Order: sequence, then structure tokens, then C-alpha cells
Amino acid sequence: MKNFDINEDPHRRYNPLINEWVLVSPHRSKRPWQGQNETVTSDALPEYDPTCYLCPGNVRANGMVNPDYESSFVFENDFAALKQEEIAFEENKNETFFRAKPERGISRVVCFSPKHNLTLPEMPAEAIENIIHTWQKEYTDLGNVDYINHVQIFENKGSVMGCSNPHPHGQIWAQSSLPTEVEKTQNNLKAYFDIHNKTLLEDYIKEEMKLDERIVVENDHFVALVPFWAIWPYETMIVSKRNVSKITDFTETEVTDFAIILKQLTTKYDNLFETSFPYSSGIHQSPTDGELHPEWHFHMHFYPPLLRSATVKKFMVGYEMMGESQRDITPEKSAAVLREQSNVHYKNNS
Amino acid sequence: MKNFDINEDPHRRYNPLINEWVLVSPHRSKRPWQGQNETVTSDALPEYDPTCYLCPGNVRANGMVNPDYESSFVFENDFAALKQEEIAFEENKNETFFRAKPERGISRVVCFSPKHNLTLPEMPAEAIENIIHTWQKEYTDLGNVDYINHVQIFENKGSVMGCSNPHPHGQIWAQSSLPTEVEKTQNNLKAYFDIHNKTLLEDYIKEEMKLDERIVVENDHFVALVPFWAIWPYETMIVSKRNVSKITDFTETEVTDFAIILKQLTTKYDNLFETSFPYSSGIHQSPTDGELHPEWHFHMHFYPPLLRSATVKKFMVGYEMMGESQRDITPEKSAAVLREQSNVHYKNNS
Ligand SMILES: O=P(O)(O)O[C@H]1O[C@H](CO)[C@@H](O)[C@H](O)[C@H]1O
Ligand SMILES: O=P(O)(O)O[C@H]1O[C@H](CO)[C@@H](O)[C@H](O)[C@H]1O
Repeated sequence: MKNFDINEDPHRRYNPLINEWVLVSPHRSKRPWQGQNETVTSDALPEYDPTCYLCPGNVRANGMVNPDYESSFVFENDFAALKQEEIAFEENKNETFFRAKPERGISRVVCFSPKHNLTLPEMPAEAIENIIHTWQKEYTDLGNVDYINHVQIFENKGSVMGCSNPHPHGQIWAQSSLPTEVEKTQNNLKAYFDIHNKTLLEDYIKEEMKLDERIVVENDHFVALVPFWAIWPYETMIVSKRNVSKITDFTETEVTDFAIILKQLTTKYDNLFETSFPYSSGIHQSPTDGELHPEWHFHMHFYPPLLRSATVKKFMVGYEMMGESQRDITPEKSAAVLREQSNVHYKNNS
Repeated sequence: MKNFDINEDPHRRYNPLINEWVLVSPHRSKRPWQGQNETVTSDALPEYDPTCYLCPGNVRANGMVNPDYESSFVFENDFAALKQEEIAFEENKNETFFRAKPERGISRVVCFSPKHNLTLPEMPAEAIENIIHTWQKEYTDLGNVDYINHVQIFENKGSVMGCSNPHPHGQIWAQSSLPTEVEKTQNNLKAYFDIHNKTLLEDYIKEEMKLDERIVVENDHFVALVPFWAIWPYETMIVSKRNVSKITDFTETEVTDFAIILKQLTTKYDNLFETSFPYSSGIHQSPTDGELHPEWHFHMHFYPPLLRSATVKKFMVGYEMMGESQRDITPEKSAAVLREQSNVHYKNNS
């Protein structure tokens, strides 16, 4: 009988953060593609677009005028999925099938730059530091609102990720409950911490740094790697080397290093297919429920959809929705490919 | 304080099948859309396409020639995600972070019709019965393979769902492990059955039929409804009224009624935006591990991506990936909209 070769044989890998498996089919990356191609959005965007509702000085849908901001700019989402209003509600504890609860929250938009055409990899690291400071302030302010127990910072980049405006921006949805994926993660982080008195990610990245097979880029305070259990072809995770549970615990040196690794990782992404690389990213960190959460270890997920080129993405569809996530290229292969990308952006040799 | 109005106020709903929540934002369906539009594939396909690798008599990528089949036709996937080969492997029980196991399986393609342009809603119900018989045969044959413990029957329809060929077809991935989503569902079904000695879905559809708010269409043996906890805008589930755990338990009358409800549901889908409605569908039923599974109750999920029109889909991205699934239109509203669609296909008045 043939011995198991993780680089060749179909297998499943276990994700200890959410207690789920992923199917890996290394041999399948050779199949031809005859399906849908994505449109590549032109790279030639103006620095200012008079029709963009995020550019400085422009009018938004609700009639408000954006200030002439110079770095980042935060405002309440004009079409928020959550509302701040308190709603009276009594839960019926006996209900099995029709359980619903009102949810309070605040949704904000964070413009990363006044320049309509300047995405993270093309910004100077100092400008990214400024975004990190904005995230810190928002995490604090929103977390201090009495009914807010979780602050989700995220970015949808590219039209293929549902982003309707190329102006560089992210979002923050802060709410009273822990969202499903966060609660799953917290349960697993807590179970590990209760046994080992160390965070799961602290031990995990130590192992990864020893193996040095899935690391994409690192510096003194952060490491960016393709997790062993990644589901998206070029999925990565940035983890702080020091065990900090939230973004507001960063020292100023850590803010600087986080900015640098964000710039390097997103530059490598853009260089991979010489395109403005689409992804959804998001920070997972301690809830703001007033409890101590020593089990939480700051990390940021990047879920990019592209698989083979700027126009061919991975579809997470029938089998993946009914069964489990599936990938072709191995995480080790993806990490190697990303690692060898230049840290200099393809559009810019400075 | 305002009282909770499920039709107006942001809330979360609980999915007892997988023990996860979904965020519902009813007020948000009014927001304008400036993002990506999908391309509508032309409806004018020929009945036979000489370049299609699924049409009768044509040659596939691996050189095999398709027979001149007259109803359905099944073959092994030429680019299978799973392999049948047995792989030697010893698990290290102490491994926490790098858990991987070889996975054996068989992937098949099921052509629904020799006609290149005939999707489910446009087929006569008798032709759909034939597909159901094929699914029964495959479930039995694959389930009988000693190392196969789960048979996942599914369909990806439309290029937006990663389908690379419009020729009507589905797939079957049969494998040795229970996939993640199936295992989650099984755990919750079993916990319910152990307490109530009835299946969760038996009790659930009884309540739904009493309320009659989310039912899309039903007949003597099946009901199609928008689940209370649906995540996709027009997500539905077909559930057998009799508590059967697998497709091979259907009586012939049930096969007929299942074919009829499949035709009606997919016809309503096509009529909604007068387009060949994309979706991923899949059957959840008893594993084939040789155990009795009284907790399983046959059901089929439909996850369609479209939201507002034939070209605007719902994006499950940043917040949804990091936090939890989110929807705008309520399940009750979607069910009402689907229910009022005609059972006669828009392209065909016969
Ligand atoms: O096997 P196909 O149809 O080529 O591929 C399609 O369905 C598979 C199963 O859901 C997915 O893994 C692929 O991403 C998708 O493109
Ligand atoms: O708020 P936006 O950017 O308009 O909307 C985008 O991000 C949201 C949060 O991930 C999603 O719910 C939407 O489906 C997506 O189009």
C-alpha cells in the first residue's frame, strides 16, 4: 500500500480555531478551467473621482458632505445592517424552531486615504500606521458603548468581494452579541488556554516558525503565514508574536511593524497576478464585553478568492456548502509562491 | 421602548440544524446597488453542442466517448477531488496543530438529460423521476463500497455558482468521512432525536405547515419552504413529509411527488427574475456507514445567490466570513415572493 504523501494524496486537515475540517486535493490543481472569468477592473483610476461618495468634499446618498480629510475618515454607514435603537423583547425559553432576538449595533465605514486610487500596498507604511491608530480608536470608542460586546473590523476589497466602490475603505460592525464565527473561535481558544495556560496561537506560530514552511513574511513582532488548515487558495493570517488579546494593547513599535507587514503582504498579493488583488480581511481579537480574555490572541485573516490568475477564482459552492470547504493547491505550495513575490509593488519601483 | 417587530428590526435567528445564527436586517433591503453585476448567459443554447464534453457521442478530456444516452448518464469525474486508492497512514494522536488524514472517495458526474439546453424546470416530471432513480441507484452502489460512509449528491447550476458547462448535470462526491457540515447536522439531529424520539425536521415542518408563512409549494409527500433561519435571499429546503432517512426509502408515489415539487420549485425560481436561476443544491440524508440513523430526515437544500435581479447577487464576504451570515430580505418575504410565482415556466406556456 502507498504511504501517505501530503503533497500528492487527497486528505483532510483540521482547523483547531473553529473545530472544522477542509478537504485538500493536491493532484487536482491541473484540471483545465472552462468556467466563469472575473472582470479585471482597470487600474487607471483617478486620484479624485467627483462621483465617488467616499472622496473628500463629496456628497453622500443621505446628503451629508464628506470633510476635506487628509488621512483616514470614519462615518456611520448610510445603509447600516445594524441599528442603535433599543428594542423591547422577552425571550421564550421553550422555543426550539423559531428563535429570534433583536440585535443592536453600529456600522461604520473607514476610508483609508483621501486618494481614490491608493490601496494598502501602494500607501507609505506611515499612512497604514494611521489606519491602525484609527482602528484602535474605533475599537476603544465602540467597545466602550455599554451594549456593544464585539467590534468586527473588516475590509472587502475588489468587486468580486462585493465591494461597490474602489475607493480604499474598510468597515466596522459593532454589536451586542458575539457573531457565530467569533464565538466558535473563542470556544476553541478558551478550551486550549484552560488546559495549557498559553494561547493556542502562541504555541501554533512557534511551531510554524520552527518548520518555516508556511511563513510568507515576518518581522520582529508579526508573522504572516498560510495556515496549515487554510481553505482559500492564497488565504493568510497575520499573527502578533507577542501574546496580545487586542489591537489597543500594541506598543508603538508593534503598530509600526504591523503596518510594515500589512504593506508587504498586500504587495506580494498584488504582485502574484499583477492585479489589485481582491480579498476580504478581518481582525479577530478580544470581545469588548468587559471580561478579561487571556485566551484571545490578536490575528487578522485574509480570504482572497483568486486561484489561477487575475480572472479565475475558486468557487466555494455545492460540495463546499453541503459538505466542507475544499482546496486544490496545498497551503505549503501557496506559501512558497507568495513568499517569493517581491516586496516592491509591480506598478512602482520606488 | 419600541417592541420587537421581526419584519422591521435587525435581529438574529437560530439555525437548529447546525447550531449557528444568522443576522437579519429587514430595513436594509432598500439600499442602492452600485457593485458588481453578473453576466446573464444567453438562453439560446442548442439542443446539441458538438464542443460540449457532456453531450451524447462526444469525446471527453481523457479521450473517452460518451454513449448515445437517452435519459441520464453517469461517469467518474475526469478531474476528481477524491481518489479511490487506499493510503497507508498512522495517526499521531498527540498532534494538535498539524492534523491531516488521507481521504478516500469517488466523484461522479450525473448528466440529467441528453439535451444540452434542458434544465430541471423545463423537463417533463417523468424525466426528473428518472434522475431520482439514478440518484437512488448511485446512493446504493456507492454506499455499498466498503470504505464509503457518506454520499453527497449536489448540483452547481449557473456560471456564478462555478459551473463550467451549462449542460444540465449534477455531481456526487462519495467518501470515507462525514463532511463537516453533515457531521454538524447529524450531531444536532441526533441530540433532538435522543430527547424526543422523533426527528427534528418532522416536528419542524409540522409547525411550518400550521403557520403557513414560509411554505413555497407542497404536495402530498413533500414540502418546499424558506427555512426560518435561511441565509441566502431565496434559500429553500425540500423536506419529505414522511420521516424517511434516505432517498432509497421513497415509495414510487414519493418519487413522483419529489419530481413534481422539484419541477415546481425550480420553475418558480426561473420565473422570479425570468432567467435560468443559478443555485447550488444538495441532498442531506443518512450516511452509508452501516449504522441505523433514525435521526436523519431526508431534505434537499437550495442555495441560490441572486438577490435583486438576474444580475445582482448577495455577497457573503467580510462580515459574513469573519462574523456570521447576514441577510436583508426576510425569509417570510422571500417565501411570499416565490409562492406567488407561476408553476408554468416563463419560456413555455404548455
Ligand atoms: O467539479 P467542477 O464542477 O469543475 O467544480 C465546481 O464544483 C466543485 C464542487 O462544489 C468546486 O470544488 C469547484 O470549485 C467548482 O468550480
Ligand atoms: O456594506 P457593503 O460594502 O455595501 O456590502 C458588502 O459588505 C457587506 C458586509 O460583508 C455584505 O453584507 C454585503 O453583501 C456586501 O455587498
